[in-house]
Formats: sequence, structure tokens, C-alpha cells
Amino acid sequence: MTVTISQTAEIQNFFKEAAGFGNDQGNPRFKQIVLRILQDTAKLIEDLQISDDEFWKAVDYLNRMGSGQEAGLLVAGLGVEHFLDLLQDAKDEQLGLTGGTPRTIEGPLYVAGAPLSEGEARMDDGTDPGTQMFLHGRVLDAAGQPLAGAVVDLWHANTNGTYSYFDGSQSEYNLRRRIVTDAEGRYRARSIVPSGYGCPPSGTTQEVLNQLGRHGQRPAHIHFFISAPGHRHLTTQINLSGDKYLWDDFAYATRDGLIGEVKFIEDAAAAQARGLNGRFAEVEFDFQLQQAKAPTAEQRSQRPRALQA
Amino acid sequence: MTVTISQTAEIQNFFKEAAGFGNDQGNPRFKQIVLRILQDTAKLIEDLQISDDEFWKAVDYLNRMGSGQEAGLLVAGLGVEHFLDLLQDAKDEQLGLTGGTPRTIEGPLYVAGAPLSEGEARMDDGTDPGTQMFLHGRVLDAAGQPLAGAVVDLWHANTNGTYSYFDGSQSEYNLRRRIVTDAEGRYRARSIVPSGYGCPPSGTTQEVLNQLGRHGQRPAHIHFFISAPGHRHLTTQINLSGDKYLWDDFAYATRDGLIGEVKFIEDAAAAQARGLNGRFAEVEFDFQLQQAKAPTAEQRSQRPRALQA
Repeated sequence: MTVTISQTAEIQNFFKEAAGFGNDQGNPRFKQIVLRILQDTAKLIEDLQISDDEFWKAVDYLNRMGSGQEAGLLVAGLGVEHFLDLLQDAKDEQLGLTGGTPRTIEGPLYVAGAPLSEGEARMDDGTDPGTQMFLHGRVLDAAGQPLAGAVVDLWHANTNGTYSYFDGSQSEYNLRRRIVTDAEGRYRARSIVPSGYGCPPSGTTQEVLNQLGRHGQRPAHIHFFISAPGHRHLTTQINLSGDKYLWDDFAYATRDGLIGEVKFIEDAAAAQARGLNGRFAEVEFDFQLQQAKAPTAEQRSQRPRALQA
Repeated sequence: MTVTISQTAEIQNFFKEAAGFGNDQGNPRFKQIVLRILQDTAKLIEDLQISDDEFWKAVDYLNRMGSGQEAGLLVAGLGVEHFLDLLQDAKDEQLGLTGGTPRTIEGPLYVAGAPLSEGEARMDDGTDPGTQMFLHGRVLDAAGQPLAGAVVDLWHANTNGTYSYFDGSQSEYNLRRRIVTDAEGRYRARSIVPSGYGCPPSGTTQEVLNQLGRHGQRPAHIHFFISAPGHRHLTTQINLSGDKYLWDDFAYATRDGLIGEVKFIEDAAAAQARGLNGRFAEVEFDFQLQQAKAPTAEQRSQRPRALQA
């Protein structure tokens, strides 16, 4: 017979003590969360008969995961970040906060403080041999009217699928820009077509995915924060059409309404008109924001993020 | 009204997909554990209405905790390691595996491969100004008979409460030894009286304890692995009498039957007989092992542990 003790008064009282319910110092909300984690952990250990070796492997895993700064990647890969989006969608629906461009996950690779420019920006530093990409579109309000002065904060990977700051071989803020929309609500970016992202092959996220029989690949995509005074902050991505991982994204970020159609243009005259020779790409994508019901809705979450030194 | 989605078929199926139930690769046991963690996490988020900011703070915490290699310290401080002992006690009781010295937590600071000697060892390198301690006792079998050839693998802190290897200022394997018991089952160690351990004040474990209104102190103690062929491996500690934290241990390791009585001896002639001048300490402690019901019971857990380079 399975032996269990976690539901006894003795153990429940022990967890309350450990979670600080025996004192009146500290943070009551924090205590409540820790108590629940202790209760859930003990019940999981008993229900699945977790062995000592399994438990200590998990503890060791947490140390290694943190050492590699992969907690944010793991919660994306296990779908928890997407779950938070679905939960927020359901809350929004109940409150009638519908319409506009869908949200999707931020991912762990944003860096605050990218160069800010008016209307347009070149995002690549010229060293990546990737296909030149002309990305443009408008930011619209809930009524479909153009929003001047919105901030389009966008970031994407290079043709190796890696991101500046996290990939030390790239220049500072390479492929990261903030563009303020013009009077017609337009933003224009020149960059290179990104490649899909893959989890570091020897990292702790891929280690878990291997055990789950899953790959760690994402389709090529471009991340966006869109913000404007009076409007609700939007965290989203466009995932590029034609990528083999478009609907097989390990982070579950691809959503209907977030596919960016990439047009490859082979016309030599069109290339010349842009000062290029050879094939280039065009992507057009408009974003539509909801109204902010409160000033806090204008802000992105307080998630701890990197800041280029 | 609270919005919840975690119990819908759609979300349960999503978590099954994320946990690898949609493929026949990977590790079925691992998939089962990950699925349960996803289900519990989603339910916790909904039940406690975890905000985005709280969630991302937790993710950031995991990265910082792992960077500081404190996962093992946290599970001790939150009582989970002690819970595992209580659960094993209950399993043992059901199987009639009772008697002998109680187990208690290993803690995260063991280092494998300490110097091995016959019968006795000096553990300190002579640099710590602490009071000299003479620790001795016997290892007994289930019938109370002395066990020759048992290995007493012991480790403890210095007078700053820190451990060699983790405290780089101490010499290699300082205060860590393995002693093989003599024909009468005896071990004898000369060392210094340890001080209690305190969590690193700016570490992530103390950060949690602060939020819980709890301190991060342990009483002075000595860790032991005791092993002998045919006998069940014992992981335990003796906690030293007279310490203000003896029954207020942040890691809940102090247990009845594991108090080491420290006798401080002020007698000058006794000191001289030992080649000392001034006060010294004596601790006597016998360990009793259970019989091993299977060869695997002779071994300690496969917990990943440090090995001095």
C-alpha cells in the first residue's frame, strides 16, 4: 500500500510553519503562495511516488537551469507562457475587451533601451549576409484610425537564429529598434529576413524537450511591443509565412491573425530602385490596439528584463 | 467572477501535447511528471490569481537561485528535505524497518572523496582558532554489536559557520574526513567545535525566508554518512547541545535522538595530557545501523554532489 502523510494535520501544520504562518513578519501574499507550493509539491511527490533520486535530479536541474538563465525559455517551451495568454484572453472576453491584434508571448530575449527613431529605422548593422527585408505597416486604434506617435519596439534574430546581447558576437542592439509612427500611423524598418530560433542544443530547456520527445525550434518571427498613450499595451509577434515550423512552434506562439506574409521580390529594377542588387523581401503588417481602460493598461508587465550595459 | 480555463478539455489537451503525450519518443515517466507539474502550475495560477508580474518575478527568481546554486538550500529551508525524511520514516514503519539512529537531512554541502583513514583522523588544518573538539563513538549493528570496518564520512563547518570547498578560503577537504571504524567499532576525530551555519545573507534562500518572516540559521552540527557492508546506509547529523538554534533550525534537521552533548573540559591537567593548553571539548556519539534488506539499501541516494577537483 502507498504510504502518504502530506494530508495529515501534523504535516499541514509543518508546512504552515515553514511558510511563515507562525509569525507576523514578512509578506502575507508571499506566505500564501509558498504554502500552496509546499502542499502541491508534497502531494505530487506522494501521488507519483517520486524517488529520492528523482527529487535530487530535479533540484540539480534547477541549479543548472538557473546558471544558464533558461527559466524563461523553459516556461515558453512547456507552454506556460502561452497558457498565460489564453487565460488573459478569457479574462478579456468576460470583460468585453475584444478586438485588435492578438497578443502572443514575449519570450525571454527582449532587451530594453533600443535606439529610438521617427518613422523608420535600419535594424541590421550590415554584417549579416541575409536577404534584405523591408517591413512596414500602420498602427491603428480600436476604430481603425491611424495612430501617430505610437512606439513600435521590435526585435528579431539574425540568420543564425540568434539575438544580439545574448549572442555576444553581434553588435550592440543589432536587430533591435524602437520606431515612432508618423502622422499616418506608419512605421518602416529595413532589416534582414530572420531565421527561426532553436533552443541552445546543450542547454537545459532542450534537455527537457529531449525527454519529452519534442524539438526546440521556432519559425522565423519578429517580436513587437506596441504602445501608445490612451491605448492598451500589446505584446505580440508576427511569424513568417512559409517556415516549416510555422504551426509546429516549440513555444506555441504562432496564432491566427499573426502570420506575416513574406513576399520575395526577384525583379532587378525594383531592387535597383531600393539601392540593392538581387532578391529582397517585403512584409507588410498592421497592428490594431485596444483602448486602455486604465493608465496601467498602457504599460507592459513588470517582468524583469535585460538592459544593454 | 474568477475566470478559469485550466480544467477545460482544450487546455488539458494542450498540456498533454506540451508534455510530449502526442509523440512516442522520449521518457514516459518524465512526461507524466511534467504533465502533473503543468496541471498543478496552471491551477495554482488560477486559484491564487497569480498576476503576470508575480509569475515573471518567480521565473527571474529561479534564474537567480540557480545562478547561486541555492536550490538545495531552498528545499532544506522550506522543509521539503525534512518532509522527505518524514515520508521515508512512515514508509519504513509500514515495512517494519525501525530501530537504530534516526535519519536527518543531508543538506547541500557534502563533497565526495574526503581523505580516508583507519580508526581516527584530525579534521582541522590547524588554522581555525576554535576550541579543539574530541569527537568519538562507535558504530553498532541492529543487535547493538560493534561494527568493525564501517565508514564514518563526516563533515562540518568552521567557526565562521562555513564549509570548505564552498568557502574557497579554507584548505582542501578541511573539516571533511572518512574514518573506518576499528575492531571495536570505534571512530575518533579531532577537530574544532563548529559554529552554526547561516544562509548567505544576500542569497536567494534568505530572500525567500525574509518574505516569510523567518531566519536562516542552523545550530552547530556535524553531518554524517555511515555505511557498512550488509547494513543500511544512514544519512544523519548530530546537533550540538546548548546552541540557541538547537530547536529553532531553519532547515528542520534537529531531531530527538540526534543531540550531541558537548562537554567543555576546563581541567588543565586533562588538557596537558592531550597536548593542549586550555579548554577543550568532548563529544561522544554512537550510531546504530539497520540491516540492509537489499544491496541497494547499503548505498546513499544518487543525489548529484560536489567532488573536489
